[in-house]
Amino acid sequence: MKILALDSSGLVASAAVVEDDITIAEYTINHKKTHSQTLLPMLDELRRMTELDLHTLDAIAVAAGPGSFTGLRIGSATAKGLGLALDIPIIPVPTVDALAFNLYGSGGLVCPIMDARRNQVYTGLYAFHKGAGQDARYDMCTMEKQCAVDIAWLAGRINELDRETVFLGDGVSVYRDQLAELLRVRYSFAPACCNRQRAACVAALGAVLYEKGIAGTAAEHVPDYLRLSQAERERAEKGDQGIDR
Amino acid sequence: MKILALDSSGLVASAAVVEDDITIAEYTINHKKTHSQTLLPMLDELRRMTELDLHTLDAIAVAAGPGSFTGLRIGSATAKGLGLALDIPIIPVPTVDALAFNLYGSGGLVCPIMDARRNQVYTGLYAFHKGAGQDARYDMCTMEKQCAVDIAWLAGRINELDRETVFLGDGVSVYRDQLAELLRVRYSFAPACCNRQRAACVAALGAVLYEKGIAGTAAEHVPDYLRLSQAERERAEKGDQGIDR
Repeated sequence: MKILALDSSGLVASAAVVEDDITIAEYTINHKKTHSQTLLPMLDELRRMTELDLHTLDAIAVAAGPGSFTGLRIGSATAKGLGLALDIPIIPVPTVDALAFNLYGSGGLVCPIMDARRNQVYTGLYAFHKGAGQDARYDMCTMEKQCAVDIAWLAGRINELDRETVFLGDGVSVYRDQLAELLRVRYSFAPACCNRQRAACVAALGAVLYEKGIAGTAAEHVPDYLRLSQAERERAEKGDQGIDR
Repeated sequence: MKILALDSSGLVASAAVVEDDITIAEYTINHKKTHSQTLLPMLDELRRMTELDLHTLDAIAVAAGPGSFTGLRIGSATAKGLGLALDIPIIPVPTVDALAFNLYGSGGLVCPIMDARRNQVYTGLYAFHKGAGQDARYDMCTMEKQCAVDIAWLAGRINELDRETVFLGDGVSVYRDQLAELLRVRYSFAPACCNRQRAACVAALGAVLYEKGIAGTAAEHVPDYLRLSQAERERAEKGDQGIDR
């Protein structure tokens, strides 16, 4: 199965082509340019370098949220456009789950934290358990589903679980000091090679989700913002139920 | 510290720029083109996309062997040329160690296997141990240093250590059936996102090695082939101590 994967949920833009157990190509940029300037040129570069015929793709996996609203829209719009043109399904991969997949096989709890502003993080808690059978793969088990919470709640939940934890994501630099104050468990931070969004992780986890039947049409696909946008929130606060602009 | 990293030790060509805890850019291709066609264009693409001034680099980390002799020469020659021009050190990162770093924080033994032909694999055995201190990083500990051995020896050694093991690398598809016959421990194979060479792993491990003082001048740098080349072996077998051609 050949999957094109995209992640533009955060500061990182990443595109990858994965076929079965092999990453054919991956291109990741964490730079100040906006995703609308980078994502399609990156994808085109991969296509050219690997002589990829887009019609050989079986599905598109996309980091489907949470994350930056604009980033998610760029990723999902790109996936929808390609999916419609190629008539292939879209696999919506929860952003935080895909981030956690960076630490495949980790011995401890895995906790991605993305800075969600307004004193919240997008986060979740995951553990890898080896399946039954001598040569079974690890399953990524969700201990806390991806959510938007404040850091104190998160630290409290980890202290309750009382397990060594590895953190990753762009929230680490923001919340490092607060975590040091709040955590009672042993913890660490993932190194540069595995602490941010990677499209190959979206693809690899996407393949697992696809096997479980999690995929939809390009027409149906919508990102999962997990929270209201600023405009929606402000309108709700004002009680303004007016006409959509 | 800003590190440019290159890995062309196997079928994969990969380039990355890593600054402290952040991967600024990474580009990886696993395609039939030769590294002499891909590596420099990929590096140039990264430079252009991230508006990188090469003079801001502090060091070059390169997968220094073992691996394909031609691949290692292309990687090392590129690193040496850039290192000489920029007057910055080269961090030689053992190829198998960098592959193992893909599975940072793994709960089990990590065993990269690269097909070395002639019934051998380039391999090694690694385990991640959390350092002392509540927030200490994991150290990657070498249980068996990278080496060229046959698969039966490797399986025997893993059975002796009697620990759950995760395999990765291009040797997996070649030796999968033999491993199934020989292994008595529980084992698994890493998924597509973390089972091949990645320059960001070379950079992240390179930063650890650099802290330990492992770096040299571009002029001194040579790859570590770990075995004799075919030409050297055949000459040795013939007892030909003749003039170098």
